[in-house]
Amino acid sequence: MIDLETELLMIPGPVKFHPRIYRAMSRPIIGHRTKEFSELMKDTTEKFQKLLKTKNDVFFITGSSTTAMESAIASLVAPNDKVLTIIQGKFSERWVDIIKAYQGIPVELNIEWRKAVLPDDIIPILEKEPDIKFITLCHNETSTGILNPGKEIGKIAREYNKILIADCVTSVGGDYVLPDDWNFDIVATGAQKCIGVPPGLGIIMVGPRAWEIINNRKNIPSLYFNLKLYKKQYEKNNQTPFTPSVPLICALNESLNIMFEEGYDNRVKRHRLMGKALREGIKALGLKLFADEKYASNTVTSILYPPKIDDKILRQKMREKGVLIAGGQGKLKNKIFRIAHMNMCSKKDILLTLSILEICLKELGFNLRLGSGVAAAQEIFLTNK
Amino acid sequence: MIDLETELLMIPGPVKFHPRIYRAMSRPIIGHRTKEFSELMKDTTEKFQKLLKTKNDVFFITGSSTTAMESAIASLVAPNDKVLTIIQGKFSERWVDIIKAYQGIPVELNIEWRKAVLPDDIIPILEKEPDIKFITLCHNETSTGILNPGKEIGKIAREYNKILIADCVTSVGGDYVLPDDWNFDIVATGAQKCIGVPPGLGIIMVGPRAWEIINNRKNIPSLYFNLKLYKKQYEKNNQTPFTPSVPLICALNESLNIMFEEGYDNRVKRHRLMGKALREGIKALGLKLFADEKYASNTVTSILYPPKIDDKILRQKMREKGVLIAGGQGKLKNKIFRIAHMNMCSKKDILLTLSILEICLKELGFNLRLGSGVAAAQEIFLTNK
Repeated sequence: MIDLETELLMIPGPVKFHPRIYRAMSRPIIGHRTKEFSELMKDTTEKFQKLLKTKNDVFFITGSSTTAMESAIASLVAPNDKVLTIIQGKFSERWVDIIKAYQGIPVELNIEWRKAVLPDDIIPILEKEPDIKFITLCHNETSTGILNPGKEIGKIAREYNKILIADCVTSVGGDYVLPDDWNFDIVATGAQKCIGVPPGLGIIMVGPRAWEIINNRKNIPSLYFNLKLYKKQYEKNNQTPFTPSVPLICALNESLNIMFEEGYDNRVKRHRLMGKALREGIKALGLKLFADEKYASNTVTSILYPPKIDDKILRQKMREKGVLIAGGQGKLKNKIFRIAHMNMCSKKDILLTLSILEICLKELGFNLRLGSGVAAAQEIFLTNK
Repeated sequence: MIDLETELLMIPGPVKFHPRIYRAMSRPIIGHRTKEFSELMKDTTEKFQKLLKTKNDVFFITGSSTTAMESAIASLVAPNDKVLTIIQGKFSERWVDIIKAYQGIPVELNIEWRKAVLPDDIIPILEKEPDIKFITLCHNETSTGILNPGKEIGKIAREYNKILIADCVTSVGGDYVLPDDWNFDIVATGAQKCIGVPPGLGIIMVGPRAWEIINNRKNIPSLYFNLKLYKKQYEKNNQTPFTPSVPLICALNESLNIMFEEGYDNRVKRHRLMGKALREGIKALGLKLFADEKYASNTVTSILYPPKIDDKILRQKMREKGVLIAGGQGKLKNKIFRIAHMNMCSKKDILLTLSILEICLKELGFNLRLGSGVAAAQEIFLTNK
């Protein structure tokens, strides 16, 4: 039997939330056209800017994280604009669908799904197709567990005078995302991953080079995704053009408080430690990491299935023992499984997940020494206090 | 001093929610790709269909209510399609902005803002412009307090073979909306009004005549608003194409439970009674209703300001005494104020609001007999048990 209320969520969103988040979300609702809500929005926006170490505009769009991605494309990309689209997994593929919907032309760069994208991968295309205006990057590819070198890609984008649109849905809040230093013109993210808030908020940062293009567009082919409206309303009274999800804004504000109480550097350090401990545990069990370890994500880890271990059966067994993990997506279905270590994820969670995983693999006939994965993770924790 | 946590929300959304809604929303979150979430989605969808007395598709879009409106236009209206747009207030105006964003051609029918739209208003235009394909209707115009005769307009739309797209954001859950009987092809609504759930869910019903058009479209110029994707995913496993706001789906399910416990007919009867009592109370105070009383909304009432009563001052005074009401919007700013009676609104709320209103008006020098508004409402309650 699965107890949904005590199940440990080790999936890449929604994640385990702090009880303070539930309390913040459950405050009696307030009117979203009041002065008090304006103050809450201003405070939340400024805290988010602090998180990104930027003064650029940040907007909260009521919706899935995809709303942040789609509002970027709707507001920036005109029909026939060329967009270098770096594809390394299921989420970077989503950019192609959005760009096509808005009649942009995606110039697809396919990178092996377990690899990071490097400057040398993109320079030849930028040289060959000088009319490319935009680059889309999935900073942390959730479907493969790769963390791309954001700063290096941003540097090239700026050198070639391209607008860099970055999906940072599973990096912001768990790893560094520094748009000013890295030359990211757009950061699109969402609430329910490392930011630690239930799903329903798309979050977008828009830099000055992006605004230059948006401001020059005559017709933006969407109302809801027209970023000009969000800017206009925020400048008027710190509110939103469409009804915001008040409880989620309350939750986001509280989550940002929690982040700054921990200290953002400490938070990133913790995510990196959890990632490292899990990877070492996995390797000690004789399993293989899917993603190039040099560019391993610190918020989600992908693991190749050993022969004869069935995806559905393993994950169901894990659930029955109280831990929810994720399978592969798209062409990685049945080939990998994924364990996320986002937001509150602690040593307890990593050790517990590894111990349950060991039992389940053992039951399925996989040859391992019980406790060996846990021991490897413990070793990491002991040497990195 | 304003106590945000005990303030009575008499604004047209967000409204006062039942404590059960907060508890439902605060259940530890579950993964949205689990079997259990599929079951919750299926149950919630079927309950919503029951509410609308239809078997048509119903989808939940993570976002403001505008997402339901925009997904209808994005999925249905091709460039240069003509849409008869009935304009009677701020929310019916929004259709024009959305239609223009998608390069449709709005054929604007301006109705006096305090009046309902009647068949005779639209027939001449349908006769004159036979290439009109769609009609947009704001069933209950929140900005003016008008409830349009949905059934009559739907009948004409069907006779002329037009697709009727209805904004029912402030009618569903508080008054009857019967798309099968009334020939509504699209019902667009949202969670935070009469449905009694915090903001963050757009809800759309799509009927078979709308599907015929959608299915024949080759390129739908949005990913997030492409209704085909919602249908495909729901048919596959009762899930959503983009991450749903899990807590709001839990809240919606609970709110539907509450509605059916009360009985939907009883619920509508209660809303009508609250509307009537408030209107009688307002008139007894010597104030004038703004909207044509024959078509008065049963979920929101608009009231003309008497001379010398300032909008900001009256509403601030009401707030200081614990009741939040709304001002006018667009060209009605400073001319009317609005009191909503949605969702849980009870006799207590109406009597309380009238008594506070009386004090505030008195303090501002308006000539009234204290208790006279309350008495008129009490009379209605005593004769309509």
